[in-house]
Amino acid sequence: MTKAQRRGLVIVHTGNGKGKTTAALGTALRAVGHGMKVLIIQFIKGSWRYGELKSLKRLEPELELIRVGKGFVGIIDDKLPREEHVEAARKGLELAREKVMGGEYDLVILDELNYAVLGGLIPIEDVLDLVRNKPSWVHLIITGREARPELIELADLVTEMREIKHPYQKGIKAQQGIDI
Amino acid sequence: MTKAQRRGLVIVHTGNGKGKTTAALGTALRAVGHGMKVLIIQFIKGSWRYGELKSLKRLEPELELIRVGKGFVGIIDDKLPREEHVEAARKGLELAREKVMGGEYDLVILDELNYAVLGGLIPIEDVLDLVRNKPSWVHLIITGREARPELIELADLVTEMREIKHPYQKGIKAQQGIDI
Repeated sequence: MTKAQRRGLVIVHTGNGKGKTTAALGTALRAVGHGMKVLIIQFIKGSWRYGELKSLKRLEPELELIRVGKGFVGIIDDKLPREEHVEAARKGLELAREKVMGGEYDLVILDELNYAVLGGLIPIEDVLDLVRNKPSWVHLIITGREARPELIELADLVTEMREIKHPYQKGIKAQQGIDI
Repeated sequence: MTKAQRRGLVIVHTGNGKGKTTAALGTALRAVGHGMKVLIIQFIKGSWRYGELKSLKRLEPELELIRVGKGFVGIIDDKLPREEHVEAARKGLELAREKVMGGEYDLVILDELNYAVLGGLIPIEDVLDLVRNKPSWVHLIITGREARPELIELADLVTEMREIKHPYQKGIKAQQGIDI
């Protein structure tokens, strides 16, 4: 199948549960196995750890990762002025637009973009515009909780990761290397 | 942290949506980055494609994959007698028990084990017994729709992948390399 014949999907992973980013990583792994070129743009820097970044190197050169976020916004140890978060997020979306429109990547993952919209860093209209105007063959995955209904409306595949049970309910601490 | 100090988690990915296996693959990718030893035992053979198997090779030798299933059970082109499915699934669980109990792996993924239970290939009691008696440091991920309530009760982290929207609703065919 040539690129022009391919129907690129718009995929959204949302919900309050675990696995939104992790399933996107799994899809990246699958896609690389199919010889696809994959780009991950990470809008929230704080959510990834060193070990994960290391294992992504195993998927180079087909997979590239660009980190644009400045960390979580508005949490207790966030010492950055809000304008810096806004600027980083908007530059990130600008970069995403360039990369998506270039049509070189088969799959582009916009990790935690919903979170950046939720935090008011990026206007939803800019996201919708990118989704509407992407090259037809590019698959897009957009992750993050509370995906906006307008985005869900545009998407082809939407999965809600719903938390049924979490270890903190049992008083268990986060375990390194496992996504909790 | 030594193995003995670690609290191995029991994680379940269930629900009717996409991403149950894919999120487990993503967790495997993360875990390998943290230097963990990972084993995937695949109970339903038909659900994985060549490309995915190829990209998992990038995660060797820390990651191993064993395929025990004979394919989907009871679907239209299933030509195997039921006993062969049952035998394959039970041998698979026996192998899983050996590997988990050995304590050598940090993370063991029992892919589509819930499906094998749902299809009546494996008694739920045997699964619960494995979960209850595993070495304390081993993380387990069990995937598949309709996880039994008894398993959810035992688990530490349960996520339901819920289908909100699927491309077939728009008449779009499956896209190679993307998990739909």
